[in-house]
Amino acid sequence: MSFDFTSHLRANLPTPVPAPFSGYPEFYFVGGNNDADSLPLTKFGDIAKSILEREGKGLAKYGMGHGPQGYRPLREVVQKNLKNRAGLTCSVDEILVTSGSLQAIDFVNQLLVDPGDTVLIEEACYGGVVARLKKLGANVIGIDLDQDGMSTDHLELVLADLKNKGVRPKYIFTIPTVQNPSGSVMTLERRLTLLDLSKTYDVPIFEDDCYADLLWEGERPPAIRALDTTGRVIYCGSFSKSIAPAFRVGYLVADWAIIAQILPSKTDGGTGALEQMVLAEYASAHFDQHVNDLQKVLSDKCQTMANSLNEHFGATAEFTIPKGGIFIWITVPNSINTSELAAAALADGVAINPGAEWAADPATGLNRLRLCFASPSKQQIKDGVKKLAEICHRKTGLPERGSNIIREAS
Amino acid sequence: MSFDFTSHLRANLPTPVPAPFSGYPEFYFVGGNNDADSLPLTKFGDIAKSILEREGKGLAKYGMGHGPQGYRPLREVVQKNLKNRAGLTCSVDEILVTSGSLQAIDFVNQLLVDPGDTVLIEEACYGGVVARLKKLGANVIGIDLDQDGMSTDHLELVLADLKNKGVRPKYIFTIPTVQNPSGSVMTLERRLTLLDLSKTYDVPIFEDDCYADLLWEGERPPAIRALDTTGRVIYCGSFSKSIAPAFRVGYLVADWAIIAQILPSKTDGGTGALEQMVLAEYASAHFDQHVNDLQKVLSDKCQTMANSLNEHFGATAEFTIPKGGIFIWITVPNSINTSELAAAALADGVAINPGAEWAADPATGLNRLRLCFASPSKQQIKDGVKKLAEICHRKTGLPERGSNIIREAS
Repeated sequence: MSFDFTSHLRANLPTPVPAPFSGYPEFYFVGGNNDADSLPLTKFGDIAKSILEREGKGLAKYGMGHGPQGYRPLREVVQKNLKNRAGLTCSVDEILVTSGSLQAIDFVNQLLVDPGDTVLIEEACYGGVVARLKKLGANVIGIDLDQDGMSTDHLELVLADLKNKGVRPKYIFTIPTVQNPSGSVMTLERRLTLLDLSKTYDVPIFEDDCYADLLWEGERPPAIRALDTTGRVIYCGSFSKSIAPAFRVGYLVADWAIIAQILPSKTDGGTGALEQMVLAEYASAHFDQHVNDLQKVLSDKCQTMANSLNEHFGATAEFTIPKGGIFIWITVPNSINTSELAAAALADGVAINPGAEWAADPATGLNRLRLCFASPSKQQIKDGVKKLAEICHRKTGLPERGSNIIREAS
Repeated sequence: MSFDFTSHLRANLPTPVPAPFSGYPEFYFVGGNNDADSLPLTKFGDIAKSILEREGKGLAKYGMGHGPQGYRPLREVVQKNLKNRAGLTCSVDEILVTSGSLQAIDFVNQLLVDPGDTVLIEEACYGGVVARLKKLGANVIGIDLDQDGMSTDHLELVLADLKNKGVRPKYIFTIPTVQNPSGSVMTLERRLTLLDLSKTYDVPIFEDDCYADLLWEGERPPAIRALDTTGRVIYCGSFSKSIAPAFRVGYLVADWAIIAQILPSKTDGGTGALEQMVLAEYASAHFDQHVNDLQKVLSDKCQTMANSLNEHFGATAEFTIPKGGIFIWITVPNSINTSELAAAALADGVAINPGAEWAADPATGLNRLRLCFASPSKQQIKDGVKKLAEICHRKTGLPERGSNIIREAS
């Protein structure tokens, strides 16, 4: 007789996955996957071979003998990149290499968030952050968002209101540069106002800059942490979007006192060594050129997706073309429930992110969706958006027109 | 003015680390580090280069497009190894690749352990497991241990006693083959008795087999999970000890229902891809030969350490020479407090594991210590053990003799 684990399990576990992974749907417009043809595989291979011969003995030691903060040459590359690209000066001791920026997010939550604590996030926000905070029992409050980033006017109202109620939020989370999902870039003025509000209300800022290297239009503003001299900003970034998601290498930047408090929680035996070694060597020589080239490819795919949306959805899909990143955030009429649309589309081989999972208040996301364009080919983008429009029309009657042809009611 | 995070932090956080990592002490006899000269770095490099050219495009996708359970060719290698080496048959869907076996341990605890729950472990036990369980607020009970592994007689007494008190432990944790730290190998008879007790008392077993591939003397018994047909055993293993700790690749094996329940907790975006790819290709062709060669090196270093202990500690250090693994577990007279010895030794450049951190009941570990021999050179082992004896003599008056010379009282 098979052993029954049911009575041994903890209460309130997440729902089990229904079946082993059996491959992606035909049109996969979700997730942080990237353009496969942009990977410098020959260079990676050459670097792996030479660095293994040169430094491979370090693999016999946890953390390659570089301690719990990660491979030192990689931290030096991050340090250089942050200085050159984000205007952010830090020491290598203020950098912690993490297993993706997801681990950085987990560390910050472990440091600061108890059940019932309040955290402020942008109204539309990376689903992984929203899900984690809700799982931790945090009270998540969304701040209005426009193409200039988080509304500091609204933020001030919320902070004042909370203060009146005796609530001090644990942190303000922001993705200021190429916000996920809106693609917005927070203006310098708002960054400075945000810092002022953080000071006035004594609330730290958690800045997630993991898409910032993919900004292809306009000037990249300095990181918020770069504008601060008080250590109130904890910063994280990643090589997942700029180089390769499967490498699982991100980083957290904070004052040493914070790193020192986080390190005892890095109980994973270190982040993968080979990836750190290859990334350090590759990024040290080629990072700027790599992201410049990648931006062109992404910008082109973005335009393809925007054109396809215009062609097949017309006025039914409202969006601003992002200035960087890997996704478009789309608003549809209220009559379309994107959670229902996502389920129907997935059953038909088209994966999309329904807005309810990407919002502080799920209700505000019901007429929104996120489509990622970096990984699919341009042909897949064209075909998939067309198919999505057909599925949407079949379910909701909208969009009424596609390619200038009025669709028949189904 | 610098921002003060103090009032924002959660309560009861671990003690911050005092300073950034500044290198290992001269004699480093702790941690799962391994023999650096045994790493096949040229093969790793060749494999990395060829596999990146062949399959590198997968790096653009989270999990290389192989889903959340890990790179499928690696799961196939694990499947083959377990069948050939541990007598354990499983499907690739019953294997979850983890970021080291530490992550597997975390997953099992997340699945089963609430504060106040009881968990049974071997009296002397891997410090990482002890620390994790105590941090979770579990009631950790140690079961007696001898060179045939966990005492099933004592286990039965404890289970019966707990049952009388209305307590059903959440799981029985065992490292049956090359137990950490004792090096013992659980007999087949005890494995079967353990399974019987697990059935009688309705308590699942968590089997950690991460050192089993390093057994160089005697026959490796089948895994406990291999002897079971009911799914009551959750199993984990690792490539950290057999190939390289810095790779951070382990695996968990369980019935699909358990994997399905764990998968929603694997929120790390996957385990490092390059390591999984290189390991799969290398282990597929070379695993048995690799561990055979490594065992010879380790056995030799083990003998060097045993000789050095005999030479410099004499009767002050009692130990059984292990049949595999990377450490020796040593008992010293009660007059020596190994926690104090470890602090004094570290200050003098010799790192050792004090037994109190490696025991269910810290008091039982106060006259014990663990010395790891895989990473240091034979000369370092000789010099370090000699130095440790000198430090120990200086602090405690023991050992009285070293190299047949009576030490003077200090």
